[in-house]
Amino acid sequence: MDYQKILEEIRQEVAPLLDKGWVADYIPELAKVDKTKFGIYLLFLDDSSYSVGDATEKFSIQSISKVFMLAHCVSHIGKKVYERVNVEPSGDPFNSLVQLEHENGIPRNPFINSGALVVTDLLITHLQDPRQQFLDFIRELVGQNDIYYDKQIARSEKSFGYRNAAMVNMMKSYGNIDNDVEEVLDLYFDFCSISMTCAELAKAFRVFANHGKLVRNDKKFLSERQFKRITAIMQTCGFYDEAGEFAFRVGLPGKSGVGGGIAAILPSEYSIAVWSPGLNKKGNSLAGFKALELFTTMTGTSIF
Amino acid sequence: MDYQKILEEIRQEVAPLLDKGWVADYIPELAKVDKTKFGIYLLFLDDSSYSVGDATEKFSIQSISKVFMLAHCVSHIGKKVYERVNVEPSGDPFNSLVQLEHENGIPRNPFINSGALVVTDLLITHLQDPRQQFLDFIRELVGQNDIYYDKQIARSEKSFGYRNAAMVNMMKSYGNIDNDVEEVLDLYFDFCSISMTCAELAKAFRVFANHGKLVRNDKKFLSERQFKRITAIMQTCGFYDEAGEFAFRVGLPGKSGVGGGIAAILPSEYSIAVWSPGLNKKGNSLAGFKALELFTTMTGTSIF
Amino acid sequence: MDYQKILEEIRQEVAPLLDKGWVADYIPELAKVDKTKFGIYLLFLDDSSYSVGDATEKFSIQSISKVFMLAHCVSHIGKKVYERVNVEPSGDPFNSLVQLEHENGIPRNPFINSGALVVTDLLITHLQDPRQQFLDFIRELVGQNDIYYDKQIARSEKSFGYRNAAMVNMMKSYGNIDNDVEEVLDLYFDFCSISMTCAELAKAFRVFANHGKLVRNDKKFLSERQFKRITAIMQTCGFYDEAGEFAFRVGLPGKSGVGGGIAAILPSEYSIAVWSPGLNKKGNSLAGFKALELFTTMTGTSIF
Amino acid sequence: MDYQKILEEIRQEVAPLLDKGWVADYIPELAKVDKTKFGIYLLFLDDSSYSVGDATEKFSIQSISKVFMLAHCVSHIGKKVYERVNVEPSGDPFNSLVQLEHENGIPRNPFINSGALVVTDLLITHLQDPRQQFLDFIRELVGQNDIYYDKQIARSEKSFGYRNAAMVNMMKSYGNIDNDVEEVLDLYFDFCSISMTCAELAKAFRVFANHGKLVRNDKKFLSERQFKRITAIMQTCGFYDEAGEFAFRVGLPGKSGVGGGIAAILPSEYSIAVWSPGLNKKGNSLAGFKALELFTTMTGTSIF
Repeated sequence: MDYQKILEEIRQEVAPLLDKGWVADYIPELAKVDKTKFGIYLLFLDDSSYSVGDATEKFSIQSISKVFMLAHCVSHIGKKVYERVNVEPSGDPFNSLVQLEHENGIPRNPFINSGALVVTDLLITHLQDPRQQFLDFIRELVGQNDIYYDKQIARSEKSFGYRNAAMVNMMKSYGNIDNDVEEVLDLYFDFCSISMTCAELAKAFRVFANHGKLVRNDKKFLSERQFKRITAIMQTCGFYDEAGEFAFRVGLPGKSGVGGGIAAILPSEYSIAVWSPGLNKKGNSLAGFKALELFTTMTGTSIF
Repeated sequence: MDYQKILEEIRQEVAPLLDKGWVADYIPELAKVDKTKFGIYLLFLDDSSYSVGDATEKFSIQSISKVFMLAHCVSHIGKKVYERVNVEPSGDPFNSLVQLEHENGIPRNPFINSGALVVTDLLITHLQDPRQQFLDFIRELVGQNDIYYDKQIARSEKSFGYRNAAMVNMMKSYGNIDNDVEEVLDLYFDFCSISMTCAELAKAFRVFANHGKLVRNDKKFLSERQFKRITAIMQTCGFYDEAGEFAFRVGLPGKSGVGGGIAAILPSEYSIAVWSPGLNKKGNSLAGFKALELFTTMTGTSIF
Repeated sequence: MDYQKILEEIRQEVAPLLDKGWVADYIPELAKVDKTKFGIYLLFLDDSSYSVGDATEKFSIQSISKVFMLAHCVSHIGKKVYERVNVEPSGDPFNSLVQLEHENGIPRNPFINSGALVVTDLLITHLQDPRQQFLDFIRELVGQNDIYYDKQIARSEKSFGYRNAAMVNMMKSYGNIDNDVEEVLDLYFDFCSISMTCAELAKAFRVFANHGKLVRNDKKFLSERQFKRITAIMQTCGFYDEAGEFAFRVGLPGKSGVGGGIAAILPSEYSIAVWSPGLNKKGNSLAGFKALELFTTMTGTSIF
Repeated sequence: MDYQKILEEIRQEVAPLLDKGWVADYIPELAKVDKTKFGIYLLFLDDSSYSVGDATEKFSIQSISKVFMLAHCVSHIGKKVYERVNVEPSGDPFNSLVQLEHENGIPRNPFINSGALVVTDLLITHLQDPRQQFLDFIRELVGQNDIYYDKQIARSEKSFGYRNAAMVNMMKSYGNIDNDVEEVLDLYFDFCSISMTCAELAKAFRVFANHGKLVRNDKKFLSERQFKRITAIMQTCGFYDEAGEFAFRVGLPGKSGVGGGIAAILPSEYSIAVWSPGLNKKGNSLAGFKALELFTTMTGTSIF
């Protein structure tokens, strides 16, 4: 199959969408991003790769980082993480406190903010230097050292992150946060502030396509069960309030972020990352979502 | 792979679970079922099949019928059905009215009661004789004529079906039910009362494994898009409040019912139906769930 | 104090408000009412009375009837009614099902629809002929026989009363309705359909101002405790989502209806009824509310 | 009437209740209080007063302080406070975040925690030295200088006050908190930590019984409208989830605190304060509630 041609066609087809979406202006630093940016990077297990557009430009991965947080946490403490956070879709907005109150401070899943905050809390408890170790973990997945936190983004988010602060305090009132509230928030905002390119993101996600094992050296980060669990959560909870829509239109497990990135995998085959800053009204990349839909349709690949 | 041996091993392994679950006693007729019953029927696209236990004994398919309702409706009126019912996981119990009120009478998805009631309403509007046509549809999928409504079950459910009556009235107050409330309820309870065996259920579900086409005569019931949509909804919404858990442990799109049945598919490969009346606390068959988990683990098959 | 002059002044002052409100168009029969109608009737325990405007024209008392339902029920079965319905303000719209679901089918208080439906259910259980006896009860309170149900209003409401039907079914699913759903609804809509004039309403409410005793013959309908309970519920729950606002601006226990009526009392002193069909956005009579505020301010009377 | 005798009788009658209630153990310092304490202080506008038990022993007034906060705020900025906080009963627990989320960060009323936090925020914005000025305000109401914050109580509350921190952050995310989150919390916990005796509390509340005017020097703190508003809020929102029950059984506007205190007024007549640390399951003083019920019943005084 001529993947390069397919990617080119997709780029042309989604071009009219690029100026349609909105940008996450509640994070001032993100509001400045150029909405015409667009990139795709496709990476197979056999190392063949294809890309179009701004696939090597860094952007803020935001919530996509939650997949790495969960994987990092699971690789250290195993399934105990699921005693502190559930694994079911939420049916509520990603930042709602209603369900948290009805369910006594246990988040619905690790990919909504409250869940990722609990994962952050666990990483503080169990790691010596979680800030550095998390960065090292992602660098090892990518196979590059030039991955960094964007401190300006982190600061920008924190100064308006009252909703997240409300969640941590709420969960702490239920006994589901062990560490200091400010420490959890600081680290969480750092985790979300990581900048990566589509190429780097596809490289990092390939560990999930490869059932938890690094392709380049066969190093195993996740057991088969751990891989299945994370993939299942991506499948059912990876796209805010559009998990069902994404499962239908794209049919790949994945995760999106308000920075406009989406990373997805076809297990045993490939990983793919797209970036387009304009968001649809549910907070997922408008053109990125469409690009992935076109890709799985044109290539006839999906988990179904 | 020796599928027959695998099924036998599964039967032995889940045997201790058979007396553990509870039976749906809010439907008096279901409360009488023998909890030691257990059956599996596995059916490949190439017509090879394997079974153990009570695989040819009829049981009440209950909510599994919602998949047939949706497929029947989509095959008649297409995607217009999704203007009346959403496609996202609910995060609330299957019979909750809270979300229905917050979202102005639009059910979260077609596999919770409120959603299936809307689908029933649509079938009344668009079909001449929906009660007969629905039965004919399932008979055609199975390739047998001995599929019937169980009027005693339907009556039994209706006489305690106040929660469902509350939902229909609620949705009608929002303008999302067109027909007479009693007519919708009567037909819905009939639809849920169908009795089938594991063998029949696996035969019927094979149309989904075969991308919407009957295996025996290539008759197309669903377009590829329609197939993907229904499969995606099974994947994200098929197991009440355990969609995430099922995606992880089993990894197949499917649907369960409080009669203790579960039907699932591996697209392009097989359909499988299990029956064990004892339920776990989320309302899914306890031994059935475990049996499917063992099956996908032992065969190494899953969508991930 | 020159009460007649005060009422005249009030009439002038609220005149500009008469065309401002909306009319309850979800009940077709009510939508036809002339919005320029306005009446007040003030009745003291010493039988002195004052009135202005359309005070002797019949209108649909609607939810004001809930006070009579509760009083009638309490006078027959005593405080057992409070085992089936709570006595606290609701904080939710009068027809919300959310709280009902969270609190297992027990309505918040007898003056929201769900609560009055439970009271209706109790009257069916405990009375021989509740429809006739309720009418007789109100006739005795007023001291007139020309009080009737308006069958056209009742029919009109019932044909659009799906929300109420949802509530009864919901409560029945929790075991908090004993009688047939349709029978409860039919009687409830009849109860709400009573037509009365301001004069008749003030006469009927005087029994509450007189601590549960008829003024003309000292017949005791309610004990002092029963009187206090009903008055306290009027005070805290009588005005939908404006109980606090009414307590502040008017400072009298009372009850409003979507027909535009409001009846209120100053215990040991007087009863007063106003009617003006135009409603504010919370569903209370716009000019009626203002008229009562002016009245208690100008006369310096209020419970505080 | 022999008020002293009545108070003595009440003390005897409630004695068996003293060891029944629970103490607010989520505030460690409060958990240490002796549950056998009990006091009443009754103060008329004509300066006659009566008391029994531990009426001159200091206790933590906790939420009773919210009445002073509101009065202080209203006396400085007038009705603008009601643009930031509503005046209706809540129907939810005092510390629920659900309603706050559904109503976009506007608290239901100033006597639930979220509402008092907004009032605290307003005091920071509009006063030079709110901590000192609030204390001076209460001292002036009482006519004594020996009223203090209890820093140990404040610290104790703050170290477990995550739920309150969640609320402030939540409201700040909606733009309904202007000042620094920590500053608001610190001041709020100080406000709640004030220690007073029943005698002092009755003296302070007498300003409300006297329609907003100090009895000893006729100094006017509140206009008649402001007095009515605050009294109406006490009446409908003063007792957590028992406002309706209190209105019925006691029939006085008032406010309770988890320290076991209750202060109430009969407008134009008297103020009364009771203290008994054991709480009922709704968080109101068990014996205190009963004592006030007996008092209004035996004296035949209530607003109804």
